[in-house]
Order: sequence, then structure tokens, then C-alpha cells
Amino acid sequence: MKEIRIAVDAMGGDEAPRMPVAGACLAARSLGVSISLVGKADLIHRELERISPTPPMELITIIDTPEWIEMGESPSTALRAKKSASVLVAAGLVAKGEAQAMVSAGNSGAAMGAAVLKMKTLPGIERPAIAIMLPTMKGEVIFLDAGATVDCQPKNLFQFAQMGSAFARTRFKIDAPRVGLLSIGEEPTKGNSLTRAAHELLANNGLNFIGNIEPKEMLRGGAEVVVCDGFVGNISLKVLEGLAELMFGLLAEELGEVFADKALQAGLKNIKRKLDWAEHGGALLLGVRGLCIISHGRSTANAIAKAIQVGKEAVDSQVLASLA
Amino acid sequence: MKEIRIAVDAMGGDEAPRMPVAGACLAARSLGVSISLVGKADLIHRELERISPTPPMELITIIDTPEWIEMGESPSTALRAKKSASVLVAAGLVAKGEAQAMVSAGNSGAAMGAAVLKMKTLPGIERPAIAIMLPTMKGEVIFLDAGATVDCQPKNLFQFAQMGSAFARTRFKIDAPRVGLLSIGEEPTKGNSLTRAAHELLANNGLNFIGNIEPKEMLRGGAEVVVCDGFVGNISLKVLEGLAELMFGLLAEELGEVFADKALQAGLKNIKRKLDWAEHGGALLLGVRGLCIISHGRSTANAIAKAIQVGKEAVDSQVLASLA
Repeated sequence: MKEIRIAVDAMGGDEAPRMPVAGACLAARSLGVSISLVGKADLIHRELERISPTPPMELITIIDTPEWIEMGESPSTALRAKKSASVLVAAGLVAKGEAQAMVSAGNSGAAMGAAVLKMKTLPGIERPAIAIMLPTMKGEVIFLDAGATVDCQPKNLFQFAQMGSAFARTRFKIDAPRVGLLSIGEEPTKGNSLTRAAHELLANNGLNFIGNIEPKEMLRGGAEVVVCDGFVGNISLKVLEGLAELMFGLLAEELGEVFADKALQAGLKNIKRKLDWAEHGGALLLGVRGLCIISHGRSTANAIAKAIQVGKEAVDSQVLASLA
Repeated sequence: MKEIRIAVDAMGGDEAPRMPVAGACLAARSLGVSISLVGKADLIHRELERISPTPPMELITIIDTPEWIEMGESPSTALRAKKSASVLVAAGLVAKGEAQAMVSAGNSGAAMGAAVLKMKTLPGIERPAIAIMLPTMKGEVIFLDAGATVDCQPKNLFQFAQMGSAFARTRFKIDAPRVGLLSIGEEPTKGNSLTRAAHELLANNGLNFIGNIEPKEMLRGGAEVVVCDGFVGNISLKVLEGLAELMFGLLAEELGEVFADKALQAGLKNIKRKLDWAEHGGALLLGVRGLCIISHGRSTANAIAKAIQVGKEAVDSQVLASLA
């Protein structure tokens, strides 16, 4: 089997380069994948030296880049100004076939922009989408767009549905994944002007389209794929995060001593983990001619290692071929 | 003090007329408000006869209407076809000053439409908004629009902010309530084309505008008022409902026997109640020249009684005068 190499943006994330470097070492050791650490070489070396036990250096290559894009920067401005930013170089490695996937926990707008610039979009796809695996009562749902394309036209939602459906076929190994359109009521007329127009497109184009789906039904496991525009998707994700936090806060308040119960604490921790997509290691950017995994800014080393694993699995399952 | 009279759409709700009638009787007894029960008189009488102890009939008037609007009907079509539908008659009572507020747990599109048709919008307000009280770590936030206006222009969001701010002044008794714009990042450039344009309007027009606010910060209590378009607001609300359900499901699964613990169950029940806006008795439709409270279709008698209380408090605190 061909070597799998993942390009990791070593400068991306709230605690970069520490977490990306540590995560890359974890993944190299446990998965046996080769890693290209892209970023400022002296900073990367310094982090590598801290790691114990000694990382599997035979699997790790350092690609020195003089600059990188900070979290707060405007993606479009920064991508124009910093041609050798780590995230651009990482995306370039994938575009040139020198790596099979890239992982970045940095500025997510910049990561998407870099992927689109270097890899280009897939034929027939005008805008990319971030696909996230959300937990449901029955397993998982592929939810997209989680934030790549905030202003969508109906055809974008249709393309997201096509990509989500292809991804679901390889991910869940089913022939005709059910695709729902996130909306505020089940009837086709319920929704806004975007969803009403998208509903028509989705209904007549060979997808296993089950119509509008409300968030509650999505979280019950009513579809394998749910599409919405990137603004609504990102807000939904952030409501999930915020409510999980609020509920744990309310629980602590309501329960007093009971809250300290060990079994309860362990159970809550598991649920927190299930709901926390940062822990899942990241989301796949669908719609570009290459694999790009976007991780949460606050990713730990474990989360980065999981993102690398997501990348490896996407290579193994030939997600790209199924999308094309 | 002048008598307060609330018009209740007796035919609105999943379990109408039972729940609206029972809720009206509860409210009449506990709050001493007069109630006009609007709907099919024989059905209302039949429900009144079931109620024990005997309802305070001196406070209850029945307004007989031959027709009503069902949950699944298209609001615009139904409002045109059924001129004497209970919800239209109830809105008419408020418009004519024969009631100070109306409550409906029926088809919410029809309730909004009826209120706009009969009461007209306030001067300077083009579209109405549903304002909901959401729980936060620090108390409550006024969240609007929760579903009245699904396709918004920037000026609509600005008008929602003005109304929310006026409502917050009377509700929280503070001079300059903090107003946030729901978005996917704090920087003014984060968001979609609607929020970016709205941000400019909100920033320069005499509000205590704190800029974009993310859902997590909203649920932490970072603002007294948060505005968004009605599609995003309704989706957010439904994500909250869905996640609450999912978390209780996951907890039961994770905890096994521990889940049966009495103190835990009691605490969870309290939290469920806090998060369930149906239990709060309903939301205020802001932007019309009259008070209209929209309740959840699955409202219990208690929820209807609370909605009537929300109406009474809105009358008492002169919300309308502050909005005008």
C-alpha cells in the first residue's frame, strides 16, 4: 500500500505550534502515517524536543515556512498578503499530490480559502461546505454546511446535498442515504425563501430526499445527511455548544451534592465528549479537489491526532473518488 | 383600576378547546382577569362543564365563532377564506379595545397574520417579531425574532432591536439594555450579508449595541436583547429543544441506574422546565398595535394560564406604550 502522508498546519490553533506538533506525533506513532509539519522550523523543532517518548522522527518531515495566518486576521487579506503562510503551503502539498490530506486548527476561513485557492473546487461544485458529524439518538448525522459558505443560493444547497450524500455512502456504507433540508417545519412551504427554492431542486434530482427536517428530528436520527446554509449551520453548531455548557451549569446548580456523584460525573463527561465536535477531531471540507480537515481552534493534541485519523480514513475510503 | 380582559383563542392548540378553556379558567381564578373565550360556543360550554371546581363564570365571556384555523393550514389562505375564524375574532377584540391582549396556541402563522391584519403594525415598524425569554446562566435574555419574519432585510433587524430594547427596559427595569446581533463571530465582518449590513445600522442609531454575539455568549447572559432573522431564530429555538431532548436521552443511556436517582430526576425536571419555552406560556408578538401572545401548540392548561399572565403583565407594565 502507498504511504499516506498528511500535511499538518503546525502554526494553526489557539495553542500552536504545541498542540499540532504533539498531535502529529501521537498520530504518527499510533496510525503509522507520515506527517509533514508545515510552519516555522525552529519553533517546530523546539516543540518536538519537549515530546516524550521521542517521536517517530522517521515519519515526520518539517517544511519550513516563514509566516502564518493568525486567528483574528481577515482570511482574504491574509491569504493575499502572505503567500508562504503555513496553511497555504500545506494546501499546496495536497494540490501537488505530495500529501493526501491537510489538517489545520487555525483560522478556519483561511484554511478554507487556502484549500479552494490551491486545490480548486470539484467539477460542478461552486462553493465548498464543511461537513460535521453530529451525534443523534441513533448514531451520527452528516451536517453541512457548518460554516464555509454563509450566503447560499438554492443551487449551493443542492450541491451540498449531492456531496453529503456521496460522503454518507462511503461513511455509512449505505446505498441511498436519506437527505433532509434543515427548516422550521416539515411542509415544503415552511422555511425562508432560500429553503423553499432549494426544496424544489432537491426534490427532483435523484437524491433520496425526505423533505424538510426540523432540528429535533435531525437529533433524533431522522436522516443521514442534513443540509443548510453555512450561517444557519454554524449558528446551530454554536447553539449546541452553548446549550451543552448551560445545561451542565444548570445541572451543577440544581443538583448540589448529587452533582458530585462519581457515576454521574463520568456519564456527563462522556456526553460532553459526544457533543463536543472539537473532540471529534474536525470536519471535512467538501467540494475541493483534495482532502482538507478543519479542526477547532481549541483542539488538544488528541483532537489533532483524531483529525489526522479522519484524514487517513478519508484517504482509505476514497471519499474524494466518491465525490467526483 | 380598569378591568383587564384577555381574549383567548379557544380553538387554537393541539388539544383545543380543552387546554385553552382549562387554562383560561385557571388564570381567571388565580389572576382575577376577565377572559373572552373565542370559539365554537357549544364546544366551549362542554369543556367548561368538565372543569372542577366550577370556574369563575362571572369573569368568563364566550364569543361564539363558527369557524377556526387548523394547525396545518396555510395561514394566508385560511385568513382570507375564514373571515370569522376564532383567531381573527380574538385579534379584532384587541383592535377594537374590547380586550387588552390576545392569546393563541393555534397555528402561529395565522395568529401573527390575524394580529397584523386586525391591529396593524406600529408606526416605523414594517414587520413584526416574536420575542421569547430564553434562560441564561445569569437570568433571561429577550431573543427575537423567534419566527415571525423569516426573510429579513437589515432594517427589519434594526427595528427588532428597537422593540427588544424598549421591551427590555420595562421587563428588566434597566435604562440601557445591551443589544447583541446573533452571529458566528464577534468581529463586525463575521456573519452573512444580512448581519454585516445590519451591524452598521445597529451601531449608529442610539442603541446600547454591543456588536455581534455568539450563541454561547448569549446563553452565558452576555446581553439583555439578542436579535436575528426569524428563520435563524426559529432554528435556534428548535435546536435548543432538540438538544435538550437528546441530552436527556443520552443521560438515561449513560447513567443506567444512577439516572433513576430521585434528586437527579427532580433536578432534571426543573432544568427541562427552564429550557422549555412552551412551559413559559408563550412569546410576545412585537410590532403590532396591540398585545398578542403566541403559545406553543402543545401548551398545557398551565402554559395557557401563564400566557394569560404574560399578557396581564404586559398590560400592567405598559409594554405597548414603551414600544410606541
